[in-house]
Amino acid sequence: MSEKRATSGMKTTGEKHLMLFTGRAYPELAEEVAANLGVEITPTKLRDFANGEIYARYLESVRGSDAFVMQCHTAPINKWIMEQLIMVDALKRASAKRITVVMPFFGYARQDKKGRGREPITARLMADLFKTAGADRLMSVDLHTSQIQGFFDGPVDHLFAMPVLAAYLRDKIDPENTTIVSPDTGRVRLAERWADTLGTPVAFIHKRRDLDVANQVKVYEVVGKVRGRTCVLIDDMIDTAGTICKAAEALYDQGATDVLVAATHAVFSNPAVDRIKNSRISEVVVTNTLPISEEKRFDKLTVLSIAPLIARAINEVFNDGSVTSLFEGDS
Amino acid sequence: MSEKRATSGMKTTGEKHLMLFTGRAYPELAEEVAANLGVEITPTKLRDFANGEIYARYLESVRGSDAFVMQCHTAPINKWIMEQLIMVDALKRASAKRITVVMPFFGYARQDKKGRGREPITARLMADLFKTAGADRLMSVDLHTSQIQGFFDGPVDHLFAMPVLAAYLRDKIDPENTTIVSPDTGRVRLAERWADTLGTPVAFIHKRRDLDVANQVKVYEVVGKVRGRTCVLIDDMIDTAGTICKAAEALYDQGATDVLVAATHAVFSNPAVDRIKNSRISEVVVTNTLPISEEKRFDKLTVLSIAPLIARAINEVFNDGSVTSLFEGDS
Amino acid sequence: MSEKRATSGMKTTGEKHLMLFTGRAYPELAEEVAANLGVEITPTKLRDFANGEIYARYLESVRGSDAFVMQCHTAPINKWIMEQLIMVDALKRASAKRITVVMPFFGYARQDKKGRGREPITARLMADLFKTAGADRLMSVDLHTSQIQGFFDGPVDHLFAMPVLAAYLRDKIDPENTTIVSPDTGRVRLAERWADTLGTPVAFIHKRRDLDVANQVKVYEVVGKVRGRTCVLIDDMIDTAGTICKAAEALYDQGATDVLVAATHAVFSNPAVDRIKNSRISEVVVTNTLPISEEKRFDKLTVLSIAPLIARAINEVFNDGSVTSLFEGDS
Amino acid sequence: MSEKRATSGMKTTGEKHLMLFTGRAYPELAEEVAANLGVEITPTKLRDFANGEIYARYLESVRGSDAFVMQCHTAPINKWIMEQLIMVDALKRASAKRITVVMPFFGYARQDKKGRGREPITARLMADLFKTAGADRLMSVDLHTSQIQGFFDGPVDHLFAMPVLAAYLRDKIDPENTTIVSPDTGRVRLAERWADTLGTPVAFIHKRRDLDVANQVKVYEVVGKVRGRTCVLIDDMIDTAGTICKAAEALYDQGATDVLVAATHAVFSNPAVDRIKNSRISEVVVTNTLPISEEKRFDKLTVLSIAPLIARAINEVFNDGSVTSLFEGDS
Amino acid sequence: MSEKRATSGMKTTGEKHLMLFTGRAYPELAEEVAANLGVEITPTKLRDFANGEIYARYLESVRGSDAFVMQCHTAPINKWIMEQLIMVDALKRASAKRITVVMPFFGYARQDKKGRGREPITARLMADLFKTAGADRLMSVDLHTSQIQGFFDGPVDHLFAMPVLAAYLRDKIDPENTTIVSPDTGRVRLAERWADTLGTPVAFIHKRRDLDVANQVKVYEVVGKVRGRTCVLIDDMIDTAGTICKAAEALYDQGATDVLVAATHAVFSNPAVDRIKNSRISEVVVTNTLPISEEKRFDKLTVLSIAPLIARAINEVFNDGSVTSLFEGDS
Amino acid sequence: MSEKRATSGMKTTGEKHLMLFTGRAYPELAEEVAANLGVEITPTKLRDFANGEIYARYLESVRGSDAFVMQCHTAPINKWIMEQLIMVDALKRASAKRITVVMPFFGYARQDKKGRGREPITARLMADLFKTAGADRLMSVDLHTSQIQGFFDGPVDHLFAMPVLAAYLRDKIDPENTTIVSPDTGRVRLAERWADTLGTPVAFIHKRRDLDVANQVKVYEVVGKVRGRTCVLIDDMIDTAGTICKAAEALYDQGATDVLVAATHAVFSNPAVDRIKNSRISEVVVTNTLPISEEKRFDKLTVLSIAPLIARAINEVFNDGSVTSLFEGDS
Repeated sequence: MSEKRATSGMKTTGEKHLMLFTGRAYPELAEEVAANLGVEITPTKLRDFANGEIYARYLESVRGSDAFVMQCHTAPINKWIMEQLIMVDALKRASAKRITVVMPFFGYARQDKKGRGREPITARLMADLFKTAGADRLMSVDLHTSQIQGFFDGPVDHLFAMPVLAAYLRDKIDPENTTIVSPDTGRVRLAERWADTLGTPVAFIHKRRDLDVANQVKVYEVVGKVRGRTCVLIDDMIDTAGTICKAAEALYDQGATDVLVAATHAVFSNPAVDRIKNSRISEVVVTNTLPISEEKRFDKLTVLSIAPLIARAINEVFNDGSVTSLFEGDS
Repeated sequence: MSEKRATSGMKTTGEKHLMLFTGRAYPELAEEVAANLGVEITPTKLRDFANGEIYARYLESVRGSDAFVMQCHTAPINKWIMEQLIMVDALKRASAKRITVVMPFFGYARQDKKGRGREPITARLMADLFKTAGADRLMSVDLHTSQIQGFFDGPVDHLFAMPVLAAYLRDKIDPENTTIVSPDTGRVRLAERWADTLGTPVAFIHKRRDLDVANQVKVYEVVGKVRGRTCVLIDDMIDTAGTICKAAEALYDQGATDVLVAATHAVFSNPAVDRIKNSRISEVVVTNTLPISEEKRFDKLTVLSIAPLIARAINEVFNDGSVTSLFEGDS
Repeated sequence: MSEKRATSGMKTTGEKHLMLFTGRAYPELAEEVAANLGVEITPTKLRDFANGEIYARYLESVRGSDAFVMQCHTAPINKWIMEQLIMVDALKRASAKRITVVMPFFGYARQDKKGRGREPITARLMADLFKTAGADRLMSVDLHTSQIQGFFDGPVDHLFAMPVLAAYLRDKIDPENTTIVSPDTGRVRLAERWADTLGTPVAFIHKRRDLDVANQVKVYEVVGKVRGRTCVLIDDMIDTAGTICKAAEALYDQGATDVLVAATHAVFSNPAVDRIKNSRISEVVVTNTLPISEEKRFDKLTVLSIAPLIARAINEVFNDGSVTSLFEGDS
Repeated sequence: MSEKRATSGMKTTGEKHLMLFTGRAYPELAEEVAANLGVEITPTKLRDFANGEIYARYLESVRGSDAFVMQCHTAPINKWIMEQLIMVDALKRASAKRITVVMPFFGYARQDKKGRGREPITARLMADLFKTAGADRLMSVDLHTSQIQGFFDGPVDHLFAMPVLAAYLRDKIDPENTTIVSPDTGRVRLAERWADTLGTPVAFIHKRRDLDVANQVKVYEVVGKVRGRTCVLIDDMIDTAGTICKAAEALYDQGATDVLVAATHAVFSNPAVDRIKNSRISEVVVTNTLPISEEKRFDKLTVLSIAPLIARAINEVFNDGSVTSLFEGDS
Repeated sequence: MSEKRATSGMKTTGEKHLMLFTGRAYPELAEEVAANLGVEITPTKLRDFANGEIYARYLESVRGSDAFVMQCHTAPINKWIMEQLIMVDALKRASAKRITVVMPFFGYARQDKKGRGREPITARLMADLFKTAGADRLMSVDLHTSQIQGFFDGPVDHLFAMPVLAAYLRDKIDPENTTIVSPDTGRVRLAERWADTLGTPVAFIHKRRDLDVANQVKVYEVVGKVRGRTCVLIDDMIDTAGTICKAAEALYDQGATDVLVAATHAVFSNPAVDRIKNSRISEVVVTNTLPISEEKRFDKLTVLSIAPLIARAINEVFNDGSVTSLFEGDS
Repeated sequence: MSEKRATSGMKTTGEKHLMLFTGRAYPELAEEVAANLGVEITPTKLRDFANGEIYARYLESVRGSDAFVMQCHTAPINKWIMEQLIMVDALKRASAKRITVVMPFFGYARQDKKGRGREPITARLMADLFKTAGADRLMSVDLHTSQIQGFFDGPVDHLFAMPVLAAYLRDKIDPENTTIVSPDTGRVRLAERWADTLGTPVAFIHKRRDLDVANQVKVYEVVGKVRGRTCVLIDDMIDTAGTICKAAEALYDQGATDVLVAATHAVFSNPAVDRIKNSRISEVVVTNTLPISEEKRFDKLTVLSIAPLIARAINEVFNDGSVTSLFEGDS
């Protein structure tokens, strides 16, 4: 029945338009991602009103775009999260076709469960707030726990920084004489993935009550072969660096010859930098998922760029390629 | 990892298909928009059952279309709103890809807040009903208050008729000898925009209790320079024309030499036409966002077509252009 | 752990507050329901603006109430449905605790499926609109199809009028000499329920193409024992009365001695009344789920009140009793 | 204002990518559909964990795909429905662009209303569960009642198998000497559509209490011309075959010379096959919307493939053609 | 059918439990509200992690409570809004029965529309974020525009501070010799309500381009009787105090003998306090909807407490009384 | 304004009504919970149709009830989950006031993240399905990971079985000579909580690749003091018992004198029972969150009832008490 076929209206060929946006938290990273992608960041007006309310406006039409909105959840973290939410709202109301929120570090990720009664689950709340603002998809690097992917009602591109960090360390260490160490029992699985990648043994630190002492002194017990070896302490983030420094101390106490640290997110809250500087840790390798100001940089710190990884992921998402290859290693 | 790339299934080039639909309230305007766009309106069967229930059916496939559904919210207003809701439901269930509801005049826009306790906020309700029926986007002209854009959870294309009206008046008036007048305190900002556009001063009418008289007589006090000048009373809509006629009277009383009226929406509820005819207003300029029947037309009425503006907006929306240029003036 | 028990704040005993509201379509029925319940209808201001937009305001606090909002979906049907939606919105915004929409006749119930492609499913749309406006529950009498209950995402109290109608007819007829007749194949199950209740046989009318005639004359074929018997034609509604009158004619043609009609909803669209008056139907029994104006009343019409049934249902809902007993008969 | 046009970002031509998936209930049908479409089914890993939990993973990128997920709701029906829900969830989280759930037989369709108080409406629940999992669209064949389309908040492609079955029977029967028979009062309208298509008269079976007998013996009363004729009993599904076999018996009792059965869904729950084998039914024609195992096949069974119809519908949906033509017959 | 009545399970009398919570922005106001209500604030642990993430936990069971969560949207405004969102999430997950968000000043209320294309509507976003977190109701004082009520999908208690401010001023001024003045055209309606309450005339300031001067100098034109009179400038908020101070200057220039200022929200962003101190304004009367630190207090500032109004509103909400009486004056 | 107080309608005292329901998976546990609560389970009709579809109906009014619906997610797990979903739907449509889904073992909890690309997150899907069906709240025992609480958009009562299991073991073991052992690195934190409770040291098994062997033999390395000690292996569930049996073997190999096992969920999929019987494990202590058929019971198995814990939790939820005390231990 040919008359039922549509003959009215008008047709054109469809087109996809990638646009990249950044908040004010760390525009340098977005610029790096843009350079890797070979695009310009879409000019955007962002400023604070006198009382701290944020104003946003895009200076170009975003209609029909496949929008990627980057923001790094660094201090003041609540402000930058709110800015990103507001940017998403503006994209939604300006008819962007699809909105992917890129948060290299997922703020509030550590509050992913009720540790005790009457607590919030703020990581889930964040996922819901972005959904409400208009986010269709999330992209993040090394979530604190993988379950957070399940907090968002939609696709989450979960990128892994380990290949970036491991590629750097491969040239620094001798696998025969190196042990990967988790600083506590919560990261042992991550350590195992590292060890599999680098071909080293694994060890970890077991914090426990000292049973012989009345008051609750925690003993940092090293589990695994570390004596006479180079140790690489790994973690997803370094916040105040308390745990990592005590772990390093325990490793040296147990005869480690050298202790390096590798972590994705350099939160570096006070007094992290002082602690590390004062520690016997010989090198700290991190990525720039969060900005590291000049005064937080120190001699033994190496910062690797996460921008190429994010750029590749954005490119795959835009072109309907597979992001899985970015986080599953070669195996 | 090539095996992860999709190799199964089949691919074709994407295509966009604009389709234009109209309800029965004012098909002539939709025809004009279609002519401006160079498309045919998609044939649609619309009729009433014996008890007043509305029946709708599209006579062509609308699958995958970028659908624009026009309806003018004129009397009987509740019927025509319901018809548009039903048309949206049918589009949603027939797999239209995107549905833009075009309502040149947004019915119930004046009920945009609770003036008193236990009132509805019907403008918000309308926005929600269209969302529920399946609308992805709204397009409207000169909303009663701009806040109504915020009532819809999605993009709203808010078009401004002032450029259309002002272009007409520019040839009629001498800016040097003209004053733009708001008929009450609620439209002064609109008057300012007009005055900025035409390069004229602004004035307005201040309705207040007469403090010298016991019973609550309202005094129409003119604020601004009007004596010996041509006055252009502006408003978003003319409903019963009570305010606008009293305002015109006050202007003449204060020495205005001529009073014209410019408004976007010609609601013209009774007794609007009689009031205007009997007034000293010399010309009324409106657009055809609402149908104006023959018996509501009178000598000093000029009706400008809103169709070119709507057609341009639809075209920009379909082609992912910028609609902003349509409502931000020339600056 | 006593400190975890709440000791702060303040407590009072909970209270439930039934409030009954009515739109303007048929306030007399609501008054009857109120009288049956022994309550006053909550005073409400409802009026039309000049352009037909509806205004609503409750004149008493409705905060915390268990609200029942009645409206009859009679002509102009779209207006009265919109009024009920607006009333629900106002209740929601005024903090009513629970909102039950009472629509004795469910408007648009006949559009409960896509008969052909590109049609709406308006009955589902209605259910969704009421949900969006704020309805928690629906109450209705004799839905056109029971599946409509599934269109609403929440509880639906589906009341049956048959016991009311059957109680009246029981005194009128001799079961030994009576047959219940369905006017078409769609109501045979309803006819069976009637027949079971009254202890009579069942029959029905089979509309079919006349195979012996070229053009598509429909033949009204009577199936079942009707010769020499009183026939009661039953249906859920009488709209234009075309089918029911032709069915009655067919019954007399087949030798029925008397034909009565029983139906729940007296839609009575033109020319229903004239058709019935001119027919040989001896009595029509309906309920007042819809208003029947004086000019639509005729000698052989009997109108039974649905108000006691609705009042009992509201009372059970308010007191958490069982409404099931109101629609499942005694068995 | 040219600077408002988007100049940043990057553009490519859009592309559509159809991908076909199948659960484990009846992969043979999906293979047949794939062959008709000329595509490969996307390889998918599906297995049960030891405790019965289902695991799913796609072995290719599905990003941006127009995904069609087939599953037949056969025994164990709850497991296969859950598997399809899980497959949809995985597609949603892997960034499929649009997800169409293909369920040739809609499980739980018979529970489409509350027959009594405090029952679920499971068909609506199923529609909601698929929506929640991420389904954008549903496709099904011969829904138990058409109202079920209204249970899903989105487009439903409702295909009809009658043309497939009727084309087969047209060669088998002589319309002059054949009657289409509905086995109960609920399928008379379906029978009428058959009769219109084949040009035969229609008849049906009326199950009623035997008024002459005290205990509630149901009498199978044949209505219509069957004596000396071939009868084709039609139904949407054959579950335990109780009704259909008793109906066939009644037809032979009334002088039918031959009785065939045509139905879309061969549920064939025990003891369906034995009943049919032991009956005088000469042929049963069904489609393969559900798998029919070897032990359920018998001599007089003819199974027609539904795959070409589904393949055509998928193709039209993918290419934005009209599916309406697939279910509206030629008229 | 008595067996259908519920006989299983167990019953107790219902109870309502008001609980009051406060964030850290301005706990003193919450304490005052608590004192007015005669309740204790529920003890809550709130603190910042090293990187600025907020932690919340209630120290008592909140199960089943009618919870009121207060937060003042003062600087750092994004942090305090986020804290309130987190508190709502924790209440929702801890089974509070109903959650009312109390925000005496609604942050981002000025961003209630798209002033230009591609802007967000942040006030709507805020309403949606609170809804998503779990808020059932909002309570606020003097919203920037009343339309904001319509941004929230639920009840909003909109309280008015004017009676509090007016009661104070009534003793200070002689209505015969006082004029209420709006500082711009946006607040004239508020000024009218003040004038009606105090029985004074009304005036306002008209900011316009100086048509005689080329560059866009704004002229502050006073409209109304102010010469030789006391002027009370009114506004909803004082942010940087630029407008209000220029308005005061214009009033003195036009012969006002005294200028007082009354406003609800003392935002007092820099350099508000210096501007006011250096102005000829004789007194500024505000409420404490926002905290005013010691260094922001000055001699001619009078701060009235909003706590009694909020306490009365909470009490009425809890007891299902009418809040309307709190914002509609006595008339 | 006294007339604004509600005077219409009618009032009664509120009442709360707890009702307990159970599916067919393991009604014995529900009976035990009911006995602990001192209530009767509400009679419910549950059966399978011939094709496996489930039918449900409550035999008493559930209107206004605080409903708790228990189901154990045991084999056939998809069927029992579907049954519980259907029961929730029926409660919602029958006007239950609040619905708490009680699932002592949360089915699909192990699929709480995307281990690899293109997998579902089935635990989140389950939470969403129950929300969609109508669940207001969830109650479960020992979730596989605590993050699952964040998958549900509402309150989750997460109960801990450790106090039940630990109370039993306290009488069995000598803390001085016992070590709590985690069978892998994922349960070390749980082991720590056990050790803190019982006052014992902690140890665990470290599964790693044997670096000295080419093929990937996993070595079960025991970490901690076990020689000459009683070991209690703890876990959240025992599925096929592979890990736990190998762990026990490793412990004996390292000189443990006795190995007991304590776990909450006795999934006991094949060949769990045979493996345990054949192992040197001396006792296995579990709870009855899942049914354990007679053939799965063996001599060294001890089953403790979880019913008192669930009953206490339900009672606290019903009475708005604190459930926190049930899962936070005494500290």
